[in-house]
Amino acid sequence: MRLTSLREEVLEANLELVRRGLVLYTFGNASGITRDEGLVVIKPSGVPYETMKPVDLVVVDLDGKVVEGSLRPSSDLPTHLILYKAFPGIGGVGHTHSRAATSWAQAQREIPCFGTTHADYFHGPVPVTKPLAPAQIRSDYEANTGRVIVRRFAKLDPFHTPAVLVAGHAPFCWGKTPEEAAHIAVVLEEIAAMASQTLVANPKARPISKYLQQKHFFRKHGGTAYYGQKK
Amino acid sequence: MRLTSLREEVLEANLELVRRGLVLYTFGNASGITRDEGLVVIKPSGVPYETMKPVDLVVVDLDGKVVEGSLRPSSDLPTHLILYKAFPGIGGVGHTHSRAATSWAQAQREIPCFGTTHADYFHGPVPVTKPLAPAQIRSDYEANTGRVIVRRFAKLDPFHTPAVLVAGHAPFCWGKTPEEAAHIAVVLEEIAAMASQTLVANPKARPISKYLQQKHFFRKHGGTAYYGQKK
Amino acid sequence: MRLTSLREEVLEANLELVRRGLVLYTFGNASGITRDEGLVVIKPSGVPYETMKPVDLVVVDLDGKVVEGSLRPSSDLPTHLILYKAFPGIGGVGHTHSRAATSWAQAQREIPCFGTTHADYFHGPVPVTKPLAPAQIRSDYEANTGRVIVRRFAKLDPFHTPAVLVAGHAPFCWGKTPEEAAHIAVVLEEIAAMASQTLVANPKARPISKYLQQKHFFRKHGGTAYYGQKK
Amino acid sequence: MRLTSLREEVLEANLELVRRGLVLYTFGNASGITRDEGLVVIKPSGVPYETMKPVDLVVVDLDGKVVEGSLRPSSDLPTHLILYKAFPGIGGVGHTHSRAATSWAQAQREIPCFGTTHADYFHGPVPVTKPLAPAQIRSDYEANTGRVIVRRFAKLDPFHTPAVLVAGHAPFCWGKTPEEAAHIAVVLEEIAAMASQTLVANPKARPISKYLQQKHFFRKHGGTAYYGQKK
Repeated sequence: MRLTSLREEVLEANLELVRRGLVLYTFGNASGITRDEGLVVIKPSGVPYETMKPVDLVVVDLDGKVVEGSLRPSSDLPTHLILYKAFPGIGGVGHTHSRAATSWAQAQREIPCFGTTHADYFHGPVPVTKPLAPAQIRSDYEANTGRVIVRRFAKLDPFHTPAVLVAGHAPFCWGKTPEEAAHIAVVLEEIAAMASQTLVANPKARPISKYLQQKHFFRKHGGTAYYGQKK
Repeated sequence: MRLTSLREEVLEANLELVRRGLVLYTFGNASGITRDEGLVVIKPSGVPYETMKPVDLVVVDLDGKVVEGSLRPSSDLPTHLILYKAFPGIGGVGHTHSRAATSWAQAQREIPCFGTTHADYFHGPVPVTKPLAPAQIRSDYEANTGRVIVRRFAKLDPFHTPAVLVAGHAPFCWGKTPEEAAHIAVVLEEIAAMASQTLVANPKARPISKYLQQKHFFRKHGGTAYYGQKK
Repeated sequence: MRLTSLREEVLEANLELVRRGLVLYTFGNASGITRDEGLVVIKPSGVPYETMKPVDLVVVDLDGKVVEGSLRPSSDLPTHLILYKAFPGIGGVGHTHSRAATSWAQAQREIPCFGTTHADYFHGPVPVTKPLAPAQIRSDYEANTGRVIVRRFAKLDPFHTPAVLVAGHAPFCWGKTPEEAAHIAVVLEEIAAMASQTLVANPKARPISKYLQQKHFFRKHGGTAYYGQKK
Repeated sequence: MRLTSLREEVLEANLELVRRGLVLYTFGNASGITRDEGLVVIKPSGVPYETMKPVDLVVVDLDGKVVEGSLRPSSDLPTHLILYKAFPGIGGVGHTHSRAATSWAQAQREIPCFGTTHADYFHGPVPVTKPLAPAQIRSDYEANTGRVIVRRFAKLDPFHTPAVLVAGHAPFCWGKTPEEAAHIAVVLEEIAAMASQTLVANPKARPISKYLQQKHFFRKHGGTAYYGQKK
């Protein structure tokens, strides 16, 4: 039962990335997890979005063993699995090569918190990982991608910083649900594009104050939030 | 009666921001005021635009007390109220996080009047506020956002300069009606994008002469205007 | 008879500017001329495109006197008239505030011929006028705009250089017909955007050689042209 | 028989370039070859895409002699023919003036391999040719364009580097089929746009390591590929 609805949620998260223009051809993938069973639903590798159905999604366990589905899972699956294991509270992961966010990953620079749009979603800069070392690339590459992310988060709360830029690669995002992971991916793309344009307008632009960063983040997150409708 | 039509005007102004691509998800809000009753109609907080109806808008008095509506008003309401109180002639306020204008706000630089497109709408640069001080952020933040705007306008005519960039945040725009406020927001986004590209083409670009600025502004505004059809 | 079809051609040229995304709200206008009668058909000032019909266009003589139509002509009409008088071979004029071309006008830099896309349409850089002097702005401003263009073309062939950037303002384009003028406006916008991105990729980019510029221009223009289908 | 289906494939490749926004008006062309007969199918010159049918495409032999069709072939045909002769394994060629890739061609800089999106398709930078010398421009220009490309590939494998930037002109792309050539053109445009934005975020950005470049390229190409579905 839970898997049936999760398949739909994961498909919907993948389609949201497409609708928002974050995905060229098949460059991107989203997944979700049922924490009780430890089963992950993920997009198949290299399959066009137009015709994708919930049944095409692949179900794997946390070791990556295919439990349901006849297609190969996304080749980035091992990265997703490492993230699910390291960040117990997350329920969805999204990965894109969206233009602006990928450009910052390629620039190998963290995205500074230049404004409140950023601070509404990220408590601090969007971090960038260390580049993978040759040995980390040679074997078990996709899992090692996950590991450099986790290492970068040694002192970071994944719910305060729900995305990372993998150096020379692209962003990974996450949230409580696949929908939230996709939402973060869309917002990150906007924040990244704004950050570039901020540098065009002022090459010496500085991050906003810690006070303003905190104000905006906690206006939307945690027990003191007052944005949106009461639930 | 007046409130009924104002609800529709305010909804329409909010939708215009969406149609013109200035709004991602729910990042933006527009409001309007009935000057006779001193009642403000504003978008509810964090509600999707697709399904928003006039009845979902919230009516408040100038102290922010909800007079009609069951949803929470936009969290930026206190900023709108300060603007309505300080600028008696305005009838609508719009706030977006549109990409280019927000980038200039994040750059904490005023937008120079680089050309006649700008001068047609703004008599001088688009100003940027001072950053809020820690105490201004800590409590009564949204109202203080309005206050730093008003302080920035000590020597400016809000009808000659119908928008401002809040430092590290985003633009606020206004006009005689909600429609006009939204129109200014759309034009400001275009002007901001052009200003960035102007700097790319010539990092030493200079504003146009005061003569040309005045010519274009007063071609469209005030008693000597001769643009458009006679009314 | 001729006026009837010219009205349709001019409306179509105006709509082409809109369809190609060169026009925000009412920022732009196109016109055409019947050389036999010396009658100019031009867009009315400040009227929305969505509902514009051929009958809404205004017919004026070369002194700007309205011959047909109940609406005011575009406020840029005097610029168009100066161009028709100075460049006898042209049959259409287009004016936009399209983002990239206007940015170069604001940068007050000519667009260098960085590549063959440019050379296919312009034999040399896209020139920029001198800024108007205070006296030229104060009275007869729109006609003086035309005059600074004409002065800039003292040694240029308007068919080899079918557009100009008015300093601090925006481009004017022309061609044998209104359709051609609009086509040039669309291509100029693309060329301007490419030129900016060329500078981002290489701030020291240089124009292509005179040989390559000539090759491409005359591949498409004049008696030696061999691009397209034989006519 | 083969020609009938190739006509459809070539038309489809041309239309893909249009759908993806790589083509303004008629700036671009794609072709395909039947290696058995040595016959090339190519877009006619200067004909609008909206109404183009398979029968409008032109069939020529490898000397450029028209074998079927009443329209003139694209003026870039001689470049295509040189590429088909020099690179025996390719089955399709695509040429566009897409904005970002053309900007790099105009910048006369190779596109560095800044990230894995690039490395998934190109094993190394996207190279730029030498500018053509005056004599190469004066006569046999389009064939000489092909020749400078081929010279640039003296030490490059056209399947590891399926595109080139012609200095001061624009990109040429190729693949095993017309569809693949068009696909490369679309991806190249994205890579070029990302590379520019990478430089905005970090003017000192460096290519990713050779290890990471190889990993990504061979994850998708050759006998060790493991991306996509098994075939």
